[in-house]
Amino acid sequence: MSEDTRFGPVMIIGAGLIGASVGCTLTEAGEEVFLRDLTPSHATVAASRGAGRVGAVDPDAIGLVVVAVPPAHLAEVVAAALAEFPNAFVVDVGSVKHALLVDLQGRDVDLGRYLGTHPMAGSHHAGPITARADLFVDRTWAITPHPSATPGALSTARDLAACCGAREVVMDAAEHDRAVAEVSHLPHAVSAMVAAGLTTVSPDHLRLAGPGVRDVTRIAGGDPGLWDQILAANSTVVGGLLDDLITRLQDLSGRLAEGRSVRGLLEDGVAGTRAIPGKHGAPSTAYARVSVEIPDTPGAFARLFADADRAGVNIEDISIEHDQVRPRGWLSLAVTPDRVAHLEQTMRNAGWQTQKLAEDTKA
Amino acid sequence: MSEDTRFGPVMIIGAGLIGASVGCTLTEAGEEVFLRDLTPSHATVAASRGAGRVGAVDPDAIGLVVVAVPPAHLAEVVAAALAEFPNAFVVDVGSVKHALLVDLQGRDVDLGRYLGTHPMAGSHHAGPITARADLFVDRTWAITPHPSATPGALSTARDLAACCGAREVVMDAAEHDRAVAEVSHLPHAVSAMVAAGLTTVSPDHLRLAGPGVRDVTRIAGGDPGLWDQILAANSTVVGGLLDDLITRLQDLSGRLAEGRSVRGLLEDGVAGTRAIPGKHGAPSTAYARVSVEIPDTPGAFARLFADADRAGVNIEDISIEHDQVRPRGWLSLAVTPDRVAHLEQTMRNAGWQTQKLAEDTKA
Repeated sequence: MSEDTRFGPVMIIGAGLIGASVGCTLTEAGEEVFLRDLTPSHATVAASRGAGRVGAVDPDAIGLVVVAVPPAHLAEVVAAALAEFPNAFVVDVGSVKHALLVDLQGRDVDLGRYLGTHPMAGSHHAGPITARADLFVDRTWAITPHPSATPGALSTARDLAACCGAREVVMDAAEHDRAVAEVSHLPHAVSAMVAAGLTTVSPDHLRLAGPGVRDVTRIAGGDPGLWDQILAANSTVVGGLLDDLITRLQDLSGRLAEGRSVRGLLEDGVAGTRAIPGKHGAPSTAYARVSVEIPDTPGAFARLFADADRAGVNIEDISIEHDQVRPRGWLSLAVTPDRVAHLEQTMRNAGWQTQKLAEDTKA
Repeated sequence: MSEDTRFGPVMIIGAGLIGASVGCTLTEAGEEVFLRDLTPSHATVAASRGAGRVGAVDPDAIGLVVVAVPPAHLAEVVAAALAEFPNAFVVDVGSVKHALLVDLQGRDVDLGRYLGTHPMAGSHHAGPITARADLFVDRTWAITPHPSATPGALSTARDLAACCGAREVVMDAAEHDRAVAEVSHLPHAVSAMVAAGLTTVSPDHLRLAGPGVRDVTRIAGGDPGLWDQILAANSTVVGGLLDDLITRLQDLSGRLAEGRSVRGLLEDGVAGTRAIPGKHGAPSTAYARVSVEIPDTPGAFARLFADADRAGVNIEDISIEHDQVRPRGWLSLAVTPDRVAHLEQTMRNAGWQTQKLAEDTKA
């Protein structure tokens, strides 16, 4: 242990993608990192990825413990770490913070050395094989101070986020949980329930599925075991938001049944999509799109983008829609509306089949 | 009018994107096409795009009328067209078919010459300026026969879809409306109501928004006036599906309140995402993704894809995630899992900053 390391020897408990990636970052930064996992092979794999090493430690010497276990086990592992490592700050990286804090406050542990955080990257159920030191670069890392935390615990948590290259957002645990419920947990739950409804839809009907339903249900493919734990840990807030949404859906359903206009409700939806920050923190912009037919073979993209480059147009967004029958797809290039005609003409001149579509309003 | 045209002179009523594009296709196919729109400038613009011409017609000579007006006006315009053009087949291209048919059946018109269809491309509210002959190529075009339709009406509708290069799907009006409610109208309504909830979320909280909530709410940006009409026209089916969804959401909320597992419900969601046909009609495949950092400048994509090409890997899907603060983005390349390591190594060797992430399960 050299004197110029920031954290002292670090113990990482839970060597999944998040824990192992923190280990990689700290190891690269010159820290001595130890790894521990309920599944010993995870710790071994993480070590092989450069996340630290597995072995005996002097509990009194550890300066920082990072707890990166699944949500359901966080409180128990944080409490045990505070007891086992009496001189260490203990920081967890779970997705839900308030219920965990309340749980810990009910235990006989020294919370002065604890701070809850939430790096918004990766997945807790992904394995250490994909760990990397740059996982958190430019990602948001929420830091959630609590009244019992010592200044050292708070500054250690902030230093950890900074060391990982993340952008810290400081908010208390309850506000954090409300924010992630609003922008992540509720959308996930709704996406899953819409997707669940598709299991009883006839395959003939599903043939009419377009990009819209794919977008709405994409995140429903996430790990059910992980999301079960996340929703359980934030059940009060998510439940309240679900009930609000149910009220809005009932309003919509009632209006449809009575033959009344639902335009105002749909306009609220448009306003909501514009409230989400766009690229580089700016408000969302309406882009125009050119769709270019692409053969489904290696090399097509390189030729396509080389030709698009000749238009000198900055491509703001890209998406692919695959043809369901013929082996080919359409690449949709979003550009500012003033450049769309020029881009399309350039692509057509280069021999590409193009379409200029208002995809977002497809009915 | 030459004898080898398929439809005889064609009258297109409603010169928006759909109507004008049908006009372009038929004009290219050698048909004589007339255009009419409640907003005369739309017809003029459509004519300038090659969709046909504006002018006086002999009603008795028209062989086909294509009605492409907004959903709320379809029945009235179809009925008027059947009366005005006594020798024409009348085909409409609206998104909802059953209520329209029932409405028409209650009017004193000759429905033998009528057939309802639904080309699944474009938007009824987009203007004729984006009209093009190839709008329908390889898109699905639903054909909805009804008991009173003559064989000539049905074959004319099928010929129209074929002439436009579309793939016909034949189903009756009620089944069509159920299918589009399931795969399009319900997802749209839910997306809009989730997005509406974001209007009351604090901007500080919205800073935590990631790609998930953007996916779920993307289609909520669609035209509220158009979608109000679509949902109204299909209100019975959509209302029933909304009520089913509300029941599932209540089940989820109730389980969360009682501290019970919601894993089974989430697993149904995963099954639902897999039920949607993937590319080329095959079941969805799980892809692995490599994220590559892209400078936000012209030229980056061409260099990037030229390098990706060297990996000889077929790229199955593409998406972009913009950094909210720094002027750059991450391009996510989806490939089959067995190729992901090779692609990533190739890109890193070429000097690109990469990440290999399981984006779909990001919490």
